[in-house]
Amino acid sequence: MTNPTAAMLVIGDEILSGRTRDTNTHYLAGELTQHGIQLAEARVVSDDQAAIVAAVNALRATYDHVFTSGGIGPTHDDITADAIAAAFGVAITHRADAMALMAAHYARSGSEFNDARKRMARIPDGAVLIDNPVSVAPGFTLGNVHVMAGVPNIFQAMVASVLPTLTGGAPLLSQSLRVLRGEGEIAAPFGALAAEYPDLSMGSYPFTQNGVMGTNLVIRGTDAGQLSQAMSKLAALFG
Amino acid sequence: MTNPTAAMLVIGDEILSGRTRDTNTHYLAGELTQHGIQLAEARVVSDDQAAIVAAVNALRATYDHVFTSGGIGPTHDDITADAIAAAFGVAITHRADAMALMAAHYARSGSEFNDARKRMARIPDGAVLIDNPVSVAPGFTLGNVHVMAGVPNIFQAMVASVLPTLTGGAPLLSQSLRVLRGEGEIAAPFGALAAEYPDLSMGSYPFTQNGVMGTNLVIRGTDAGQLSQAMSKLAALFG
Repeated sequence: MTNPTAAMLVIGDEILSGRTRDTNTHYLAGELTQHGIQLAEARVVSDDQAAIVAAVNALRATYDHVFTSGGIGPTHDDITADAIAAAFGVAITHRADAMALMAAHYARSGSEFNDARKRMARIPDGAVLIDNPVSVAPGFTLGNVHVMAGVPNIFQAMVASVLPTLTGGAPLLSQSLRVLRGEGEIAAPFGALAAEYPDLSMGSYPFTQNGVMGTNLVIRGTDAGQLSQAMSKLAALFG
Repeated sequence: MTNPTAAMLVIGDEILSGRTRDTNTHYLAGELTQHGIQLAEARVVSDDQAAIVAAVNALRATYDHVFTSGGIGPTHDDITADAIAAAFGVAITHRADAMALMAAHYARSGSEFNDARKRMARIPDGAVLIDNPVSVAPGFTLGNVHVMAGVPNIFQAMVASVLPTLTGGAPLLSQSLRVLRGEGEIAAPFGALAAEYPDLSMGSYPFTQNGVMGTNLVIRGTDAGQLSQAMSKLAALFG
């Protein structure tokens, strides 16, 4: 596949402790697949600068894009912006345009634009702001790293801001066939079919429903013609 | 924290394409936290041997335990056992005890114990089997790597088989306070309190409910005395 590749980096102790369930990776996966960008890896790390820096540097060197979620709020445990600056070896300062956006927002809402809130205007040098239509405090893109909020509705809004600016490839198409046979029964012919189509990806996902074992057979690829040809053969085998 | 550390490695194209939502990481996180093992990192990689080998070798060198989910079924895309053998540089063969377990199971159920199903008895040399009370085909532990199924109810049963065999530390305790103020308002005093208790981890998680902004303040740690002292101070600040 020649589509651009991407990685997701989720930042937050609350995910690793089991307190909070990460939903952003699944959301991003679906959006990237539609946009023709292949999500190739995802990681979750804690609110620890060394861990964030190591992950960001490994991922940005390996994939075309890196998306992060979490750690850009106003409290002491929000250290993502500083960690990204450290990863790139650039300075981080209160940026004038971000300060202006946020000052106007807090003036409208009658809340104090205090030092904690001003922390959210600290942006690494050279970054481009990502619009936050929900709560104003921006995300940012530095190099191939897109830094976004962890709160799901803000994360989703930021993805909607960033994604149209990225060059996608052919959308990854998928079709599936549900069969009421166990994986062990369909494995041999299904594997032979997969070997016939090296450009397609074929996977099987077992389920049990009302005590009956079945398997969802899924074929994925970017070539619609190949995909429908392979699906016809699959249906002839198991339909 | 001196508790043992762990990483989770989820293996599967279906997670990265957005088809399937990973629920195993969240489940494992909660179980490890109760058992006094600190989940320090999680990764998702695709059904690709090089990607699995690189992740397994990086994680097993860094953390006390690695838990994997996915890729141990009977179909061509189930390559986890081979990848683990490659990562450790050991051979992999159809193991007699696993073959016997599975032969008996398929004889009881009247299904053929065919070559695809026999693939699930291929176990790297030197591994210890992990019991699978749901569908018999075992997981295995090799060194500090625990290899388990991706299907959630089987994954959970295997975690229940493995976890009692591992030495845990003090359970990670947590308490939280829900306040109806935005993060930006509580950040300064909350940060000062966090600085007073370097052995505790304090996080803040904003929410909006019926248009009202609020924050969940969470304190985590293994020392119950310190935790309740810090919670008293938190309640005095914001209660």
